[in-house]
Amino acid sequence: MDAITIVGLIAAAFTTIALIPQLMKVWKTKSTRDISTGMFTLYSSGLFLWFVYGVYIKDLPIILANSLAFIQALVILVFKAKYK
Amino acid sequence: MDAITIVGLIAAAFTTIALIPQLMKVWKTKSTRDISTGMFTLYSSGLFLWFVYGVYIKDLPIILANSLAFIQALVILVFKAKYK
Repeated sequence: MDAITIVGLIAAAFTTIALIPQLMKVWKTKSTRDISTGMFTLYSSGLFLWFVYGVYIKDLPIILANSLAFIQALVILVFKAKYK
Repeated sequence: MDAITIVGLIAAAFTTIALIPQLMKVWKTKSTRDISTGMFTLYSSGLFLWFVYGVYIKDLPIILANSLAFIQALVILVFKAKYK
């Protein structure tokens, strides 16, 4: 595997796991006042469309990365609706 | 342009502009308590690596989308450091 493929894989891993600390923070504090509904609505819609795109072009990394991130973004949105 | 390319472009547009409402919210409220430093550190690092990847493979959409999102994520991180 060449260096730039490894850079791409690390990039994908980072943007996929980025939501985990936010999810854990919201879970612990039950506070979502400073989180933007607009951001997580746009972001989950985008991730879902990436997932659809991945399924259509049959690209496993796109499917995996975006479905995982989509679920996390959706849970954060649910928390946002529940804890104002 | 076929339908699935349009889905991919909308997906890219959504995940790129998603940070704008969060940035505007932080700008207005000067409050970042519920925002996770871990999320935005991981996310900006990932976006920066995507940008490097895009430059290397000379892919303009990857370069544009990720550099724009990177700048926004970085500004949110600066706000997070400034307004606890």
